[in-house]
Amino acid sequence: MNEKIIQKVRENIPLIHHLTNAPTMNFVANGTLAFGASPVMAKSIDEAADMAKNADAVYINIGTVAAEDIPAMIAAGKAGNEKGIPVLVDPVGNAATPFRSQAVDRILAEVKPTVIKGNAGEIAHLAGMDWKVKGVDSVGDGNIEDAAKLVAEKYDTAVVVSGKTDVICVGERIFTNDTGHHYLTLVTGGGCLLGSIMCSCLSTDDSIEEQLLTAVEFYGLAAEYAVAQDHVKGPGTFMATFLDALSMDAAILKGEKQHESINS
Amino acid sequence: MNEKIIQKVRENIPLIHHLTNAPTMNFVANGTLAFGASPVMAKSIDEAADMAKNADAVYINIGTVAAEDIPAMIAAGKAGNEKGIPVLVDPVGNAATPFRSQAVDRILAEVKPTVIKGNAGEIAHLAGMDWKVKGVDSVGDGNIEDAAKLVAEKYDTAVVVSGKTDVICVGERIFTNDTGHHYLTLVTGGGCLLGSIMCSCLSTDDSIEEQLLTAVEFYGLAAEYAVAQDHVKGPGTFMATFLDALSMDAAILKGEKQHESINS
Amino acid sequence: MNEKIIQKVRENIPLIHHLTNAPTMNFVANGTLAFGASPVMAKSIDEAADMAKNADAVYINIGTVAAEDIPAMIAAGKAGNEKGIPVLVDPVGNAATPFRSQAVDRILAEVKPTVIKGNAGEIAHLAGMDWKVKGVDSVGDGNIEDAAKLVAEKYDTAVVVSGKTDVICVGERIFTNDTGHHYLTLVTGGGCLLGSIMCSCLSTDDSIEEQLLTAVEFYGLAAEYAVAQDHVKGPGTFMATFLDALSMDAAILKGEKQHESINS
Repeated sequence: MNEKIIQKVRENIPLIHHLTNAPTMNFVANGTLAFGASPVMAKSIDEAADMAKNADAVYINIGTVAAEDIPAMIAAGKAGNEKGIPVLVDPVGNAATPFRSQAVDRILAEVKPTVIKGNAGEIAHLAGMDWKVKGVDSVGDGNIEDAAKLVAEKYDTAVVVSGKTDVICVGERIFTNDTGHHYLTLVTGGGCLLGSIMCSCLSTDDSIEEQLLTAVEFYGLAAEYAVAQDHVKGPGTFMATFLDALSMDAAILKGEKQHESINS
Repeated sequence: MNEKIIQKVRENIPLIHHLTNAPTMNFVANGTLAFGASPVMAKSIDEAADMAKNADAVYINIGTVAAEDIPAMIAAGKAGNEKGIPVLVDPVGNAATPFRSQAVDRILAEVKPTVIKGNAGEIAHLAGMDWKVKGVDSVGDGNIEDAAKLVAEKYDTAVVVSGKTDVICVGERIFTNDTGHHYLTLVTGGGCLLGSIMCSCLSTDDSIEEQLLTAVEFYGLAAEYAVAQDHVKGPGTFMATFLDALSMDAAILKGEKQHESINS
Repeated sequence: MNEKIIQKVRENIPLIHHLTNAPTMNFVANGTLAFGASPVMAKSIDEAADMAKNADAVYINIGTVAAEDIPAMIAAGKAGNEKGIPVLVDPVGNAATPFRSQAVDRILAEVKPTVIKGNAGEIAHLAGMDWKVKGVDSVGDGNIEDAAKLVAEKYDTAVVVSGKTDVICVGERIFTNDTGHHYLTLVTGGGCLLGSIMCSCLSTDDSIEEQLLTAVEFYGLAAEYAVAQDHVKGPGTFMATFLDALSMDAAILKGEKQHESINS
């Protein structure tokens, strides 16, 4: 983890344009704010590209996409590509229905992603591998690194496979991260918000492997910190405390420093 | 309450397909996850039926329905009927506007519900009885059991009328439940999430009266437990702790067992 | 602050019809409920006007508006005007894209607002003044009172400019409020929910300056109270406690009275 990346995000307050799913918008926006960036979620084709031109990164997540939403996603992604800002694509549940699979194909045919991020089932589906899924969740197992490398080559992009161990593929290099907690899977949008935190980190001038590793490691540490707090008794109190943790310094999450009172 | 139903849900992790309203999606998804099931909310006509084919139950809730959403609700409901999985319909605020009333009629003309669930005003409206409503809330009073029986016969379905006393009608039999707390009415989606918890319970192989009674009794106990926690001071802290409670065993909610720390 | 206005809201439970943005719907609905009013969010053109006819105030917020949403906003606003109930317009991020600016123009050409409420950048844009914005946030500075007066005259409306100091313009008179906390800017919908609280206060029979001052002062006090609680450690726990605070009496927020346990 490169903590300077987090500091830069908090100094620059990058504007992250989200084309994302309905159920998790509120949580993702709050997590983006907590981390120190600025979310905007202008989903209309009438302004998606204009908003991307103002932004520092574009995040496309197909969680509850309908056919009529795809043109705005493509327009925002292309505007991001033209501006030269990072564009992250999250192919949520792409194996669950033919429509989802085709929606991702349509987007990736026109938008060049800086990063494709998904769970193992989603990345495996993009790689053309068989994988067991349930709704929008991955429940199968197989060689995740192979899947990531195939997708990285096929789409000429960095790839992040989120899971118990996160796998990051940049070119032919593989990096892994083991911070995190299964409680993130008990909160809707745990994966979606990670995509937004990645976008925030991608907006700095550091190397992409440092940016992605910082995002996943910090995110996992925040979950570990939240679960370790005495007042957290389940997914509801976890969610509130996890948002708190995203606003803290890495040193606090790692137990190297005490959290200062905000009540003074 | 049959606690084995809850155990089965947590072992099988049923996939509940939600066609539901925008303001409460996040809360409903989080409550479904907390309870132990898996929510998906694919609202597009392009995949609503395909997603239902993968699911263990279908939940149709018209809280913020627009005309263009109705075909996807019908497609998902029909796919659920064909697969033989439970389909629950919640006619939110059907008496508030002619459009809502007609939307419910259109859905129920094509979809065979396993359960219709609503507040007293909604069920009374379906029964053709006069009832006072305010927006999407019921404020009138009358004979709830009669209303439930009329709706059960008219639509050949089980009926749940949620309220201070929940009334369940299966065939000609009436069951009631008195767990719960008025704080559930201070959180948006308190009724919507109950529909999803019912769907989870309906996915087991038990009798429908046991499934519905278990859902409403457990849900009410979770609310009572949350309100009784010292750190709960109002609707915001209630909501977080209620989600925690939904993830616990019934024995903990009833005070028969201590909650184990999740922080170990 | 006129605490009787808050008491009247809690006695009358006004129905506030929201035509609002997707990411903050859940938070706004919960805040409206916590404060003591009743939210409804019927966004469809098929019922927006009918729902407004049942309501006590109409709130139009363009946060994630698409072209197809505008007719429903106009229909609800006009129905509110015809019924003689307060109509509040929040031109969220109107300077961010041409589409937003035009959307607001279209709405204000047909709907007569009782109040226009925005941040400094939004009000300045309506006034035709140059102002620096970032996404949907205002980051510039200038003479806010002048901007408010220009907008009040141009649209024959009261104006509220929310910010560190809130500025209220009624006719040619200016009122200000200094309660509040920067944590409100770390939670998505902090401004949106204020609009809804204003609508609740506007539903009483008091003078508009008292209604608006009561709303902004109470809202700011609730934020101050939440931040001062020991268990609030960041934006996530703040959000839950802020919702609690919105349900309390002003005397508690001001420290003049203890909060009674809800656990009895």
